[in-house]
Amino acid sequence: MKVELLSITEHAEELIESAGRTAYKTFDKKKEGSEKKFIRMLVANGHLSVLEHAYASFRITGGSRAFTHQLVRHRLCAFTQQSQRYVNEKDFTYVEPESIEMNSEAHSLFSAFMQKAREVYIELKEMGIKNEDARFVLPNAVQSEIVVTANLREWRHIIELRGGAGSQWEIREMAIKILESLKKQVPAVFEDYQVDMKRKVIVRSTT
Amino acid sequence: MKVELLSITEHAEELIESAGRTAYKTFDKKKEGSEKKFIRMLVANGHLSVLEHAYASFRITGGSRAFTHQLVRHRLCAFTQQSQRYVNEKDFTYVEPESIEMNSEAHSLFSAFMQKAREVYIELKEMGIKNEDARFVLPNAVQSEIVVTANLREWRHIIELRGGAGSQWEIREMAIKILESLKKQVPAVFEDYQVDMKRKVIVRSTT
Amino acid sequence: MKVELLSITEHAEELIESAGRTAYKTFDKKKEGSEKKFIRMLVANGHLSVLEHAYASFRITGGSRAFTHQLVRHRLCAFTQQSQRYVNEKDFTYVEPESIEMNSEAHSLFSAFMQKAREVYIELKEMGIKNEDARFVLPNAVQSEIVVTANLREWRHIIELRGGAGSQWEIREMAIKILESLKKQVPAVFEDYQVDMKRKVIVRSTT
Amino acid sequence: MKVELLSITEHAEELIESAGRTAYKTFDKKKEGSEKKFIRMLVANGHLSVLEHAYASFRITGGSRAFTHQLVRHRLCAFTQQSQRYVNEKDFTYVEPESIEMNSEAHSLFSAFMQKAREVYIELKEMGIKNEDARFVLPNAVQSEIVVTANLREWRHIIELRGGAGSQWEIREMAIKILESLKKQVPAVFEDYQVDMKRKVIVRSTT
Repeated sequence: MKVELLSITEHAEELIESAGRTAYKTFDKKKEGSEKKFIRMLVANGHLSVLEHAYASFRITGGSRAFTHQLVRHRLCAFTQQSQRYVNEKDFTYVEPESIEMNSEAHSLFSAFMQKAREVYIELKEMGIKNEDARFVLPNAVQSEIVVTANLREWRHIIELRGGAGSQWEIREMAIKILESLKKQVPAVFEDYQVDMKRKVIVRSTT
Repeated sequence: MKVELLSITEHAEELIESAGRTAYKTFDKKKEGSEKKFIRMLVANGHLSVLEHAYASFRITGGSRAFTHQLVRHRLCAFTQQSQRYVNEKDFTYVEPESIEMNSEAHSLFSAFMQKAREVYIELKEMGIKNEDARFVLPNAVQSEIVVTANLREWRHIIELRGGAGSQWEIREMAIKILESLKKQVPAVFEDYQVDMKRKVIVRSTT
Repeated sequence: MKVELLSITEHAEELIESAGRTAYKTFDKKKEGSEKKFIRMLVANGHLSVLEHAYASFRITGGSRAFTHQLVRHRLCAFTQQSQRYVNEKDFTYVEPESIEMNSEAHSLFSAFMQKAREVYIELKEMGIKNEDARFVLPNAVQSEIVVTANLREWRHIIELRGGAGSQWEIREMAIKILESLKKQVPAVFEDYQVDMKRKVIVRSTT
Repeated sequence: MKVELLSITEHAEELIESAGRTAYKTFDKKKEGSEKKFIRMLVANGHLSVLEHAYASFRITGGSRAFTHQLVRHRLCAFTQQSQRYVNEKDFTYVEPESIEMNSEAHSLFSAFMQKAREVYIELKEMGIKNEDARFVLPNAVQSEIVVTANLREWRHIIELRGGAGSQWEIREMAIKILESLKKQVPAVFEDYQVDMKRKVIVRSTT
């Protein structure tokens, strides 16, 4: 899975401070570097609504349709996804779960089935079946590209919810990659989340 | 596809009138049967927010995962869907598009492939692969049960958007069935929408 | 402030169980009374999305415009509010904060000012000024009726957020009254929240 | 009323095209200037969801609390507003409607009342009443600063809804100023909306 940052609010941390100080009319306290401290205070006090003024958009490639079906359940995001109605999927790529890849018998079975799925899809297309109906044979493993935009409060929510040990491995991988990207861009907003590389999960340190 | 009404706000039309009259403080105009006229006025003037006080929940069975992936893109609904992580899908049922069913060659190919998908799924499970990974072979055609709740303004939006000739046939079928159910329950709210049975589309009559 | 239950999903707890079991396809475990246990499990595990299938609507009378301005910031609710553009407010009633009422000097000042506001409003109206402009003199204390509908997950959120010691006393009073109403209607969904009558706050007991 | 653009997605039109082409996988058609044509096609076909990937934030100063109470009813925005609980309002500024300003008798009455409101507020504060209770005397005319962020689809919705002849004059003024700002920044997204300067309303030209 590849996660590419497409866009993020310019000077997002300064914008958050500038918007947030509107509530208290304490613009005089804004100075070089004060945004970090201000954001730490917001996060510590749970005043997360101010984080909604900044946004980040990502393009996610190499995720399965099983993964995207889960991802689009988040209702505070904007999504644009590769359509199996508009796009001819004869050249589809697919995701193979590690548990299958590591088991040579399972791997052979899986690979042969994906090959079969492609053949059936192409045959149906050749019989004049339209994309929107031929796609009924496409497996969950088929990859689908998706662009997703959310505000930073929602990204915190997604990262916390999907970064935990109980969540599906693909969406967890996405959460980790997005966190790594956002920690570089807006460190103060995400500094309480850490990636535990060994367990491949996200943990929150509240100090 | 089967659409079953699970729940609808009791006395929904009266509730809408009662809530709506709060804006104008014209409770004295509320009388036996006045709700129909009041709702007609709201719809004609586009004051649809008042319709958000009433809700309806449906259980939808027999839709494909292609269909549910589309449906859950509506962000003003509540969804609970059969999970391919929790449920063993060895006995899955599936949707066959009419364009395939009517073509005997395509039908044979499709049916054999669904059988193959089931076998591969079962074999993977027997090799110790977990539901959440074995499901990567399941085709879009596999059926998934889903419960969806939305307010009546949102149901109007879904019915209008998904009932048109350009929309995918499964979600259009759902829109038609939900409209038929809601027209019985809350006729004043949906009386401007009609099903054109010949073309299997929903049309709106604005008089 | 008066909080009146206008509507609540019929058999809400049974509906929640019925919707929730769709995820796991464990309908066979549903039996007389099992909904209480099922809902306790959802709340304990934080699987709150299933609570979104049930709704409750309240009419709130006797709250100030200061209070309603705060209330309508909740974005997952439906609101219909008495309009100061449509309604002539010459007979307005108003809210007097306890801290003012208990201080006889402040009380006299406040009462005289409210009388003055009414006079000015009426004079402006007599000069031909329309409601929508005359209302510019109306104080925050002026009461405004509002109908609000939200799903049970959102009511839990509002009750928790607004029931705490830090929140404004009017909205806290609303949270307490709504909790008391909902505890009677759908006890399993709200049993972990308690009203501390002495401190007039809501506390959550997690056992 | 002053409307100041605080932030807008960088290269918003290019981002919209880049996100939108994901649905069709037609990235090869993207070239210098193609974003304008692509966006026109989206708007003409009503495929507005793609516009949700770009955002704009504004600081609005000089609006009344009557206006902000209306504005915050939009539920797909992020708001941070000057708090009458945190901020001492003794130096408040206020909005005087034109219909009052143009009528010298009404103007005198209104001005004197605003002066009275300030005096009462200050006296209450001196008696030890807290901001959150003293504010109950503040009139709707009192100004309140607010920062609002929304995506471009939502800005189109607000501009259309609030720019019409039937909407309150303050929020209409805001809609006009925001449209003027956005037409400069992202012309292709707003080119179908025009300001009719004579009537001070927004009209949509669908060609």
